[in-house]
Amino acid sequence: MIHETAIVSGHAKLGRNVVIGPYTIIHPETIIGDDTEIGSNCEIGYPTPSADGEPLVLGASSLVRSHSVLYQGSTFGAELVTGHRVTIREKTKAGANFQVGTLGDIQGNCVIGDYVRFHSNVHIGQHSWIGNFVWIFPYVVLTNDPHPPSSVMMGVRIEDFAAIATSSVVLPGVTVGAGALVAAQSSVSKNVEPGKVVGGVPAKVLCDTTDISLKDGSDMSAYPWRRHFHRGYPAHVVSEWEKEFN
Amino acid sequence: MIHETAIVSGHAKLGRNVVIGPYTIIHPETIIGDDTEIGSNCEIGYPTPSADGEPLVLGASSLVRSHSVLYQGSTFGAELVTGHRVTIREKTKAGANFQVGTLGDIQGNCVIGDYVRFHSNVHIGQHSWIGNFVWIFPYVVLTNDPHPPSSVMMGVRIEDFAAIATSSVVLPGVTVGAGALVAAQSSVSKNVEPGKVVGGVPAKVLCDTTDISLKDGSDMSAYPWRRHFHRGYPAHVVSEWEKEFN
Amino acid sequence: MIHETAIVSGHAKLGRNVVIGPYTIIHPETIIGDDTEIGSNCEIGYPTPSADGEPLVLGASSLVRSHSVLYQGSTFGAELVTGHRVTIREKTKAGANFQVGTLGDIQGNCVIGDYVRFHSNVHIGQHSWIGNFVWIFPYVVLTNDPHPPSSVMMGVRIEDFAAIATSSVVLPGVTVGAGALVAAQSSVSKNVEPGKVVGGVPAKVLCDTTDISLKDGSDMSAYPWRRHFHRGYPAHVVSEWEKEFN
Repeated sequence: MIHETAIVSGHAKLGRNVVIGPYTIIHPETIIGDDTEIGSNCEIGYPTPSADGEPLVLGASSLVRSHSVLYQGSTFGAELVTGHRVTIREKTKAGANFQVGTLGDIQGNCVIGDYVRFHSNVHIGQHSWIGNFVWIFPYVVLTNDPHPPSSVMMGVRIEDFAAIATSSVVLPGVTVGAGALVAAQSSVSKNVEPGKVVGGVPAKVLCDTTDISLKDGSDMSAYPWRRHFHRGYPAHVVSEWEKEFN
Repeated sequence: MIHETAIVSGHAKLGRNVVIGPYTIIHPETIIGDDTEIGSNCEIGYPTPSADGEPLVLGASSLVRSHSVLYQGSTFGAELVTGHRVTIREKTKAGANFQVGTLGDIQGNCVIGDYVRFHSNVHIGQHSWIGNFVWIFPYVVLTNDPHPPSSVMMGVRIEDFAAIATSSVVLPGVTVGAGALVAAQSSVSKNVEPGKVVGGVPAKVLCDTTDISLKDGSDMSAYPWRRHFHRGYPAHVVSEWEKEFN
Repeated sequence: MIHETAIVSGHAKLGRNVVIGPYTIIHPETIIGDDTEIGSNCEIGYPTPSADGEPLVLGASSLVRSHSVLYQGSTFGAELVTGHRVTIREKTKAGANFQVGTLGDIQGNCVIGDYVRFHSNVHIGQHSWIGNFVWIFPYVVLTNDPHPPSSVMMGVRIEDFAAIATSSVVLPGVTVGAGALVAAQSSVSKNVEPGKVVGGVPAKVLCDTTDISLKDGSDMSAYPWRRHFHRGYPAHVVSEWEKEFN
């Protein structure tokens, strides 16, 4: 299951049934869980002194797509799924079933909860804190430097079930509350209360998320989204959500 | 013409004079037209169950640059040209001489006309519909989900000769009319009439495209752009345009 | 120091102690300085007729990370550092210790001074002019076409010590003056005076950079940033800055 052109360090620890694609490099400080598949042209466990010698740990049943670079020193729960050409630097810790789309760039020293979804091409600055079931859409940037360039780092905080729509920027030190929605192309300079919709440059409060109707012909509200959107979540999670709304 | 390090499935169908670069992988469900060149480090015909078994079809005389990933199940006319690290997913159908720049990310299930130009790093959401001679500039996103995350998909429609300038977002279900111009850094939430210029967050009508003067010392209008900009189009197309304006 | 899987043209000129990673291709028109390291999966000296036969010149003690593509015809001073998947096209000339982050896309025909820093995923249009000690943050685009698409090219000018924050667009022909700051998510349509802060869509003057306090508990101004931020600059440069402010 390891392609003959893959370059796998003898020091790396690979679980059972691990698949390694062509032209992929597995560096020494790498631990890969059972049944995980790494695509072609990747660098896994990429060495950096900033990791203080810690290994990259990939959970079981994960899928890392081609041309991705994962640094040593980060840890992922089971069922990580990446798109192509993802970069994840050191000292990030993500929970179960983290999904990060093509071209995602996670700068390191981040905390990411369970069942988080990043669409393509997000940029997650160092020291970001992201809860569970968060959604982040293409070209969103989570920043950290309040007066660039400087050595001051004020990571952002995105709480459970929040969604940050396409091409928005969250400014340093901002908290986006649970279940809030940031509209596309916004610049979020102030904390967002739970369940609110904000938008604009700079972002202002537009309405409550529950004011947005689902455009599927029903008269349901589109939020909380977990009432109607279940694709890709495990049965025990969906079952909890169904109980919550019945 | 096939590099000795390329991994080419015996099931793939390659035309005459096809060139395959080093470290590139050609998967089984791939049909490549005559005189087409694939650069290094690519994955071509990348397998996905979402393609329902359909192959990737690349037209003749195409050029796919290095590190690109093209999924099975999409079809391109002749003379496709890609930059580096392009991703195109399944079930997209593009016409003749489609050009997509470095880092372009086309999500699949799109319809793209003839002679369309995408500059670097565009993100084209699923179910986008794009006419002929359209231009899309860097960091533009065509979205599709009116209340993310959800299962509702409202693809955008970009009509012939329209141009979407840098870092703009077109919101779900919006139509940008023929020959219209979206200014840079806009968020387009309403349909744009043909021949209008819109800009801002949210985008408002600014003027007619014909109100914009060409900054080349002439007193010509910059639009319709086909009156003065002919680079890269075939002689029979340019000849039509010349007749139109004489 | 040259990996056995690297493909290195006999025509390329490599200095002493050059390291070439696995699966990397070094094309003929390439000159690499002493002690430079090229990561895996790169294409270096990528051929293009637009380079008029000029080679790629990489200075000594440089580091090019994996999956990068550097075209022939550009020249870099010593101590270039790139992230992963960087693209730099032909006829760009950069000074000493240029640092360009992951996914950076430099379109060619640019002039870049000494000690310039680009964070991840910037897009630098052709004919941009960038001074010394400039900072450019993620998803910034420097444009050049005043009425796209056209053949008119009006490159932007970014003067010494200026900083362009995340996701901003600088419109064609604009000059950002020395030490100025462009706030995140801005669209800069007019020249920015030295030392001013601008922001918004379109960008307006917000204040002087010296009005921004450093958020580190001191009562120092955050600008000029060279008073407090020295990481990664050589001792002789920092020593000059220290003299300037004492």
